Amino acid sequence: MLKSALGGESVKLDQLEWHPLPEGFVMWKLLHVSSEAGSWTVMFQAPKGSSFAGHIHSGPGEYFLTKGKIEVRGGEAEGGVSATGPSYGYEACNARHDETLILEDSEIYMTFQGPLQLIDDEGRTIGVLGWEQAQAMWDEQTG
Amino acid sequence: MLKSALGGESVKLDQLEWHPLPEGFVMWKLLHVSSEAGSWTVMFQAPKGSSFAGHIHSGPGEYFLTKGKIEVRGGEAEGGVSATGPSYGYEACNARHDETLILEDSEIYMTFQGPLQLIDDEGRTIGVLGWEQAQAMWDEQTG
Amino acid sequence: MLKSALGGESVKLDQLEWHPLPEGFVMWKLLHVSSEAGSWTVMFQAPKGSSFAGHIHSGPGEYFLTKGKIEVRGGEAEGGVSATGPSYGYEACNARHDETLILEDSEIYMTFQGPLQLIDDEGRTIGVLGWEQAQAMWDEQTG
Amino acid sequence: MLKSALGGESVKLDQLEWHPLPEGFVMWKLLHVSSEAGSWTVMFQAPKGSSFAGHIHSGPGEYFLTKGKIEVRGGEAEGGVSATGPSYGYEACNARHDETLILEDSEIYMTFQGPLQLIDDEGRTIGVLGWEQAQAMWDEQTG
Repeated sequence: MLKSALGGESVKLDQLEWHPLPEGFVMWKLLHVSSEAGSWTVMFQAPKGSSFAGHIHSGPGEYFLTKGKIEVRGGEAEGGVSATGPSYGYEACNARHDETLILEDSEIYMTFQGPLQLIDDEGRTIGVLGWEQAQAMWDEQTG
Repeated sequence: MLKSALGGESVKLDQLEWHPLPEGFVMWKLLHVSSEAGSWTVMFQAPKGSSFAGHIHSGPGEYFLTKGKIEVRGGEAEGGVSATGPSYGYEACNARHDETLILEDSEIYMTFQGPLQLIDDEGRTIGVLGWEQAQAMWDEQTG
Repeated sequence: MLKSALGGESVKLDQLEWHPLPEGFVMWKLLHVSSEAGSWTVMFQAPKGSSFAGHIHSGPGEYFLTKGKIEVRGGEAEGGVSATGPSYGYEACNARHDETLILEDSEIYMTFQGPLQLIDDEGRTIGVLGWEQAQAMWDEQTG
Repeated sequence: MLKSALGGESVKLDQLEWHPLPEGFVMWKLLHVSSEAGSWTVMFQAPKGSSFAGHIHSGPGEYFLTKGKIEVRGGEAEGGVSATGPSYGYEACNARHDETLILEDSEIYMTFQGPLQLIDDEGRTIGVLGWEQAQAMWDEQTG
């Protein structure tokens, strides 16, 4: 499945429904994929108490936390970040994120360059989530 | 061999003040620059009746219009887009934007890959605005 | 705000020695890494009869085969490419390469965007090779 | 005109003819454009005594000088580089190159991210050369 963004796109967010990520608590919307460059853009709605499983960013990622509170890379206590919305964040190429905790109901707009390596507690890759896997999951949920 | 060792960044938006773009009506905050890749990220606060001057995107750009209403590439009447927040938009590499009109008070989070060519009405480059010019302007405004 | 101030680099190829890739038959030189963007550049010297193990490109990769003959993605017989130097090749984001065969002594200059997923015969990721792993291996070999 | 590289490509270099750049002394072949990401790849054949006009790189560029000798950014005498083939070079995002001198018959394989700003002696942009302009010129020369 190939999809390329060669023209402009515009998406009214209210016209896209939320769908659950596999874990079941975080909801998402896929806003865009650039299959040639391997970048992709999503919106997350993450309720208090939910989390994102461990992953490594293959390329840089940027987020706009419009509201809520999240704890990235262990939070400030472990040298990571505790971000309260509205906040901007940049996660560098190869940044490793063990469990990301959602401390308050949060909404996150995020642009990814390249895929995420999904990792276990020892940092071993147990899966890959990039534009192609995101697109396939979205197509299945919305098709 | 040069190596940029970049870690994560986190910016609390309320702790950055708005500063005016040269035209004077649109306010901005510079959130991030990636000098190696040439990408940069900003927040715009654009009051009703303001506009962005003509430009060409050297690389793809993505925006999250959190609120407001904007008219891109002439709006729908001319084959462009009239976006109402909350909306997502993708502007392709080499997209040409003549004047972008702000129809309602708007807030726009935008990630740019590469510089903007600032153009006159005939499409001739009259200036360049990329991460380096943005950083210099921001340093001057906040220094 | 982090900023990588990178200038130009110039590497005289004859002043870098060849070092073996883990498998032992293909020799390589690491020419460049861009840690922010996650791209990297290498030169390979691959003798007739050697091969590259299976991998998936996380982002696009481009090669300049200065001399020799290689069989990519199964070669022409299986819908892939049999390239004879001097040739240029573009491998798309997410291109999967099972074993790449070297049919004649070959020299390959290659630029990678993002890491390679090293895969087994079933396509499962068994390792990752990106700028960081390449840099670490090169530092160990040349340090 | 939109062209995207979503699959693999392979180009046998001997099957492409050389065509002159506008100035008339340097010959080129366009090997690839990535219209979504805005990157492009060329081969140059530059005879002794020829030169490249002044330009600024909008994004990083990498070259493989297979043979010959070139003087970049004023050469070593002015803090630039005098490269003798075979050499690899990395030119950073926003690198400014005033006239690049070709000291010996040279062949250069180069990958560009983003367009070149063509500049006059004062550094003012007098034109833009990116994937789209390169593709248009190539189509005209080969069509």
